[in-house]
Amino acid sequence: MLNSSQIGALSQIVGQENCYADKAHRLAYSYDATRASHQPDLVLFPRHEADLQAILRYCNAEKIPVVPRGAGSGFTGGALAAQGGVVLAFEKHMNQILEIDMENLVARVQPGVVNMEFQNAVEEVGLFYPPDPASQEYSTLGGNVSENAGGMRAAKYGITKDYVMALRAVLPSGEVIRAGKKTIKDVAGYNIAGLLVGSEGTLAVLSEITLKLIPKPALRQTAMGIFPSVKAAMNATYRTFGAGVTPVAMEFLDQKTIAAVEATYKKGLPTHAGAILITDVDGNTPEDISWQLSQLEAVFKANGAETFYRAKNEEEAAAIWFARRNASPSLKHYGPTKLNEDITVPRSRLPELLDRIEAIGQRHDHPIPCFGHTGDGNVHVNVMTNKKDAVRYHNAEKAITEIFEAAIELEGTLSGEHGIGLAKAPFMNMAFTPAEMALFAAVKKAFDPHNILNPGKMGI
Amino acid sequence: MLNSSQIGALSQIVGQENCYADKAHRLAYSYDATRASHQPDLVLFPRHEADLQAILRYCNAEKIPVVPRGAGSGFTGGALAAQGGVVLAFEKHMNQILEIDMENLVARVQPGVVNMEFQNAVEEVGLFYPPDPASQEYSTLGGNVSENAGGMRAAKYGITKDYVMALRAVLPSGEVIRAGKKTIKDVAGYNIAGLLVGSEGTLAVLSEITLKLIPKPALRQTAMGIFPSVKAAMNATYRTFGAGVTPVAMEFLDQKTIAAVEATYKKGLPTHAGAILITDVDGNTPEDISWQLSQLEAVFKANGAETFYRAKNEEEAAAIWFARRNASPSLKHYGPTKLNEDITVPRSRLPELLDRIEAIGQRHDHPIPCFGHTGDGNVHVNVMTNKKDAVRYHNAEKAITEIFEAAIELEGTLSGEHGIGLAKAPFMNMAFTPAEMALFAAVKKAFDPHNILNPGKMGI
Repeated sequence: MLNSSQIGALSQIVGQENCYADKAHRLAYSYDATRASHQPDLVLFPRHEADLQAILRYCNAEKIPVVPRGAGSGFTGGALAAQGGVVLAFEKHMNQILEIDMENLVARVQPGVVNMEFQNAVEEVGLFYPPDPASQEYSTLGGNVSENAGGMRAAKYGITKDYVMALRAVLPSGEVIRAGKKTIKDVAGYNIAGLLVGSEGTLAVLSEITLKLIPKPALRQTAMGIFPSVKAAMNATYRTFGAGVTPVAMEFLDQKTIAAVEATYKKGLPTHAGAILITDVDGNTPEDISWQLSQLEAVFKANGAETFYRAKNEEEAAAIWFARRNASPSLKHYGPTKLNEDITVPRSRLPELLDRIEAIGQRHDHPIPCFGHTGDGNVHVNVMTNKKDAVRYHNAEKAITEIFEAAIELEGTLSGEHGIGLAKAPFMNMAFTPAEMALFAAVKKAFDPHNILNPGKMGI
Repeated sequence: MLNSSQIGALSQIVGQENCYADKAHRLAYSYDATRASHQPDLVLFPRHEADLQAILRYCNAEKIPVVPRGAGSGFTGGALAAQGGVVLAFEKHMNQILEIDMENLVARVQPGVVNMEFQNAVEEVGLFYPPDPASQEYSTLGGNVSENAGGMRAAKYGITKDYVMALRAVLPSGEVIRAGKKTIKDVAGYNIAGLLVGSEGTLAVLSEITLKLIPKPALRQTAMGIFPSVKAAMNATYRTFGAGVTPVAMEFLDQKTIAAVEATYKKGLPTHAGAILITDVDGNTPEDISWQLSQLEAVFKANGAETFYRAKNEEEAAAIWFARRNASPSLKHYGPTKLNEDITVPRSRLPELLDRIEAIGQRHDHPIPCFGHTGDGNVHVNVMTNKKDAVRYHNAEKAITEIFEAAIELEGTLSGEHGIGLAKAPFMNMAFTPAEMALFAAVKKAFDPHNILNPGKMGI
């Protein structure tokens, strides 16, 4: 709990109008998409980097926890004030696009800029920022960088870390560091920018982000494959990349997910299918698009696809993507509580992973619909249960643990894009050795010796 | 100096046949491409990861410096035993390609594998490993990762860090850590793999490297633009990327370099030109290649190119590339001693950078031919001087300092691909603030508390 002199000091830094200790603010900033709730003692709206410096210097001296927060749309509790203290919210002031540098295809932004606003701004000038997490309409670039967000276009274009060229950040000491450059290459000093990406606000507070942009390809086309089994679809996925095609997106829905979307929206989806693959390709010439689609069709058919359908226009493409975009909300069809995880395995292990998930679901008597970024080996696994039924919920939790075990055994990871935060922290010891965990702790200490930055996260 | 009991203990770990304290070995392993010489006390050829663990555990306890070494082809002294101690050489045993995983487009290698051998092995099965440093015929993947090597294909395909998916490494404590995964995405824990890339052997010793591969595009074509001035060529460079074309390579030679190559090899190069741009594009359809070349031609002509020449076949392409590949050795035309640096700036700052380099050369009365990876903003700057003429050499060193100052002022970096090592360590304070240098030191300490790993490098 902060005392009144601490609140007064912090209020003086940012001004009263940017400092809130009232119940409504503390509640509003206590949530994220996990539905867990941890109230901060104070919500601050820093105006600029100098505010961040003063806040951190003070909190470091007073050992007050500081939690940087984007839109609170995270799935693992990364933005929650697990140990109270101060939440830093960037949406009021530090939300500006500072520069779109057309000559170098680079942009500089403040952490509070919303992903979609940024995408729109760069597309208006013919450029392209590929990372598109499902939360893109509200999540912020600061949050995206801190969680190393992925998205649908990662199969071809990579994830947030592939676009972070440079960062400005404030250390707990209040000192500003610059990491990386507005240059394509930079090998001077340690790759601190690379380390800060995905560090979930535990090492430093971002004050400015320099992002790489690319020219927007002129053409894009959507296609869909309908497969008799999820295994056939998974085989087609990994063999596509081996055939020399790198689709922008390659997403799958399993039979249970297709059924849920159809039950909810009645769109005439192929509910008999074991799985569907939805894919986009892009390029600059019609021939390049045709070549990619022909390769895709050949691979899909060779792996048992009964249908390969090319969208003829924007409307057809939107109709195909509708199923994928509405997969997540449809799943309440199977139960009121969803435990969703974003495990990731090497693509060739997908068939085995899906088999094991099916067996785990049967063993614990829970439907586990799966969908997601199969082009990245990233599966959104949804154990549908009921929190109010204690026995059933306990079984669902056992299923989640077994799913993590399966992912790790198949050379995979606990998280492809959602991060660790609070939700997956208990599983870190499953994925990392004591030596690796000790190294994480040592790195944390190098940045944040008093453990004021987002304490209690990542199991560190 | 190691005493005989220390040498005995280390010899016992790797076996006598892998342990050398004789003059010839100490001399042979004292050099790299900088021509500086620092003799180690002992040269060890570890057989496997367990040897690395035992060596590091022992050296950590005894505070003996340990210097991991690739092929010794570095330009900044990264592989030199600046404080004596043990050199670890990987070419005898730890030089195997462990796996080429066709299903996931991933390879696992030991650090001693030579870059070109690896490229050849993956191309034999239709895959592609883009990073191609000029040293590719002898430099090792362990060295490439430790220096974050670039190369000619970086303009489109990125640099070594973009291909490192996972690492196994041994800490000074002797503990093995795994960092990263054979998955496209992995956001569990800190990005330790990203931090180890480019850390010049100062944080841990690599024992295994997992690299991303891509399908090899079917088609490739070379073209050349002849420009009246270096400024015109630099303008054309950065405007090319803005026009939506990303060439595989975009390399330039300035007038002095063209003249030196022509004087040395008599190939009929356009010695009247202010600069030439050599570029490769690749793709999977002839139309995509044509589209890219048309865009290039339009941009080159709009920026004053007098000629845009498309190579008609492999022989013509090889003839065009001959000039670029032989640029470096030709420069002795201008003087016996070459001080070469690989500064990098945002592409749009290239015209100004080249102007400033020209002025610096005139002020200090030294020819400074420039060539390099202009598509990355990465210029190889060559101050041609004579080490035996003390006054002249001192002026050349002043020119180098001014060139670094210009690069930093133009938002650039000391090094695009060669690293810092010993050679650029004195300039680190020019590029980084005390807070940033202190952070590097704290990170170093988190990994290597007794400073045994490659001590004295990177100014840390």
